[in-house]
Amino acid sequence: MVKDDCIFCKIAGGKIPAATLYEDEDFRVILDLGPASRGHALILPKEHYQDLCELDEAVGAKVLALAAKIGRAMKSGLGCAGFNLVQNNGEAAGQTVKHFHMHIIPRYEGGPEMVVWKPGSSDAGELEKIVEEITAQL
Amino acid sequence: MVKDDCIFCKIAGGKIPAATLYEDEDFRVILDLGPASRGHALILPKEHYQDLCELDEAVGAKVLALAAKIGRAMKSGLGCAGFNLVQNNGEAAGQTVKHFHMHIIPRYEGGPEMVVWKPGSSDAGELEKIVEEITAQL
Repeated sequence: MVKDDCIFCKIAGGKIPAATLYEDEDFRVILDLGPASRGHALILPKEHYQDLCELDEAVGAKVLALAAKIGRAMKSGLGCAGFNLVQNNGEAAGQTVKHFHMHIIPRYEGGPEMVVWKPGSSDAGELEKIVEEITAQL
Repeated sequence: MVKDDCIFCKIAGGKIPAATLYEDEDFRVILDLGPASRGHALILPKEHYQDLCELDEAVGAKVLALAAKIGRAMKSGLGCAGFNLVQNNGEAAGQTVKHFHMHIIPRYEGGPEMVVWKPGSSDAGELEKIVEEITAQL
């Protein structure tokens, strides 16, 4: 289903123009207009799913193969040395548009640091507690 | 195939103990020992694939459904408000262990900023050039 007031539904459906890298019946892949690096792209499903938790499983099963295809083309076409996949769920996680999207961010030798976090630590007791809290919900 | 000198092959195969959240025939999901936030987890395939470009397509097709399952359990079990998926390919992209892995990072209300980049800009000519460079490789 497409959501009338969703900007990514409009872009994915071709109602708002975007720099398109790839399109098939399920997805449109576009360039991000506020790129983290040269070639930063977004995979958008054409149907509306708010986030990963809502994403249709059959559609979700195709996302990583598509990301690999685009990532490989970025390496040969743009000369990047690698790339990150980033996918945010919820405002607290930095999700600004509530339509599932996967970022593909090319990374270049000597390029700026990104997607960084300061590794914390966990003692054995804390790890055990976290395992219990999560696995109780599986 | 499993790679003898790969730490994630050993962990995924149960040869080195790890705080395990989930296991099936294809994957083990563990807690990261240097967590970005409480509950930071890693999806590890049991077979060795260096990165997304090498990942077997049938295995890759299962990753997002598993990530959604773990993410949902994090929300109900840990009370996080959202979560990020992050997957790094290549040293330039911050990949430290050369065995495909997907980070699932719980995010909490008022928690620290992470997975940030400064949005750049692209003019129409530059976008068109990038589209050409990538699509020529697809």
